[in-house]
Amino acid sequence: MQYERDAIQAMTGYTPGEQPADSGIIKLNTNENPYPPAESVMVALGALQPEALRRYPSPSAATFLSEAARLHKLSTDQLVATNGGDELLRLAITTFVEPAQPIGIAEPSYSLYPVLAAIHGSPVHAEPLGADWSMPDDFGARMNAAGVPLTLFVNPNAPSGHLTSAERIDALASELDGVLLVDEAYVDFADPGHDVLSLVNRHDNLLILRTLSKGYSLAGLRLGYGIGAPGLIAPIATKTRDSYSVDAVADTLGAAALADQAAAKRTWQAVRAERQRVCAALRTRGFTIPDTEANFCLAQVPVDARKDAAGLYEGLKDRGILVRHFSTPRLENCLRISIGTEAQNNLMLGALGDLLR
Amino acid sequence: MQYERDAIQAMTGYTPGEQPADSGIIKLNTNENPYPPAESVMVALGALQPEALRRYPSPSAATFLSEAARLHKLSTDQLVATNGGDELLRLAITTFVEPAQPIGIAEPSYSLYPVLAAIHGSPVHAEPLGADWSMPDDFGARMNAAGVPLTLFVNPNAPSGHLTSAERIDALASELDGVLLVDEAYVDFADPGHDVLSLVNRHDNLLILRTLSKGYSLAGLRLGYGIGAPGLIAPIATKTRDSYSVDAVADTLGAAALADQAAAKRTWQAVRAERQRVCAALRTRGFTIPDTEANFCLAQVPVDARKDAAGLYEGLKDRGILVRHFSTPRLENCLRISIGTEAQNNLMLGALGDLLR
Repeated sequence: MQYERDAIQAMTGYTPGEQPADSGIIKLNTNENPYPPAESVMVALGALQPEALRRYPSPSAATFLSEAARLHKLSTDQLVATNGGDELLRLAITTFVEPAQPIGIAEPSYSLYPVLAAIHGSPVHAEPLGADWSMPDDFGARMNAAGVPLTLFVNPNAPSGHLTSAERIDALASELDGVLLVDEAYVDFADPGHDVLSLVNRHDNLLILRTLSKGYSLAGLRLGYGIGAPGLIAPIATKTRDSYSVDAVADTLGAAALADQAAAKRTWQAVRAERQRVCAALRTRGFTIPDTEANFCLAQVPVDARKDAAGLYEGLKDRGILVRHFSTPRLENCLRISIGTEAQNNLMLGALGDLLR
Repeated sequence: MQYERDAIQAMTGYTPGEQPADSGIIKLNTNENPYPPAESVMVALGALQPEALRRYPSPSAATFLSEAARLHKLSTDQLVATNGGDELLRLAITTFVEPAQPIGIAEPSYSLYPVLAAIHGSPVHAEPLGADWSMPDDFGARMNAAGVPLTLFVNPNAPSGHLTSAERIDALASELDGVLLVDEAYVDFADPGHDVLSLVNRHDNLLILRTLSKGYSLAGLRLGYGIGAPGLIAPIATKTRDSYSVDAVADTLGAAALADQAAAKRTWQAVRAERQRVCAALRTRGFTIPDTEANFCLAQVPVDARKDAAGLYEGLKDRGILVRHFSTPRLENCLRISIGTEAQNNLMLGALGDLLR
């Protein structure tokens, strides 16, 4: 007998990137930071006492929140900690969207958004990004016309890496009738001059998502957080979020990670340098790559290449190198390649060269 | 401006028990296991490598699932790991209940259930437990008559500790038209002869919740799991659950905890022995206490006592001892007291004696 709701029966779940147990695989497929977490984080891990595991954690992840408030010069009622950034995405939908109301997204963007909408029972209102991956001028107006109570916008964009300016985000927040969630999963790798955090003091409808998965090399820990006006944060933090959704390990290690900005920034700078080198090398081989401010690039395979994107994906995989291939119309001839260490990138570039020779 | 849904605006969030940062407080309020996690769990923690934090975890928590399957002699498609048992409760609602359909519960039980129903936009259909905290004979028939697609039943019951037999659970699963979720958060402390796990092979509508929070002294880690027929598990594991909801630390340490049954069982036996002693001592002082198979007891304050339950709660708190008091009609003259270590229990009993003298 079928017990699941018809809508769940009918939907397709999110397909996570491959997470092979084999540590010999070169993983350039899920946008992890290629460098390890800060030494201070490992020290904090080693210092955890049995009591921290035995007892329930702080319901608010107070240690982490306090450190995040200090770092961003905000108050803790402007912050909420979540079990990875993905939990905040779900909670924004649960909190701000009635089932059947549409959820606004740009297309293409993070492929989890439509999955979360389907679970909630909401249609997706998708507006295509421009040919250069920029936000259309009438993006906000179109969302309002569609009656969208929540717009999810990943910036820098995934999968292109295109960065929308803080000025444009500011204007969009003003335009939108509903809540604007800016998913900044990759923002740590962007131009350090880019900053939208201060906008939360001026917009009561702006919610910013951050995660420690990429910028702080802690994807395995599951820790994200939301930043916004207290009126947006409170219902998430005190009503819709699972009690104790952030564990004691994440609370402690997340605080240690934020406290060690120097260590994290070294990895961001190294990724930026490698990103520039990798994109230049790929362009030399004929790939078209939009400017990227993330820790990945979207490489469009030259039309006259010996293999198409699907073939290159398979060829790389045969050589122990994982990248991401999406079989959607706009992306079917592209590979999304995470920026790895210098050695990993060289192996990837060499393998691509072999496959295209 | 209000952006949250009206239903969220109108509801009251879950009130977690107090989680004081002060480790000098005697915490008998949130049913933690009073003994530390197994030494092997701490060894596994110390052995975690930076790579385990840097990379995304196994989407299914494969290490943990494999160990759980071995322990319970089930296949991994009968199991799903979740971010604490609370995530499984939410996911069961998301997966099996249309918004506005009623959710069935016994009353009183875990106070999170109505909160999750409110978030989902579902009314609660509550049937009162008997005077002896047992399930009424027509419980299943009443749930069916109410058109309930999901019944949440905590066994042993919280807050009374009353254990419903496996035979009765078996019969209830047969009776119910919808899904029966048996929340076994406290079952590790029950009579070892009690076992309903094998029933999942005979009922396609039975979902069992387990958690490592209590039995394995890992409340800080946030790890629970569901056990059921593959047809119930699959939509949760592959569709409605957040991708990567269980972190790499929980995956590894949870497997280590399940693997060390001897260590966990020593704590269960110690809790049972202390439970018997504490209940006897409280009954001697005039408290009425239903037989409990959990790691807590529900102590009804004698009517002629010098203080009522609220007064005793405050008096204990003044002495650095936290217990739980619920101000609902049926529970307002009761204290729910977690079973602590021998020393903690003696301090609690002594303080209660002072307050009632």
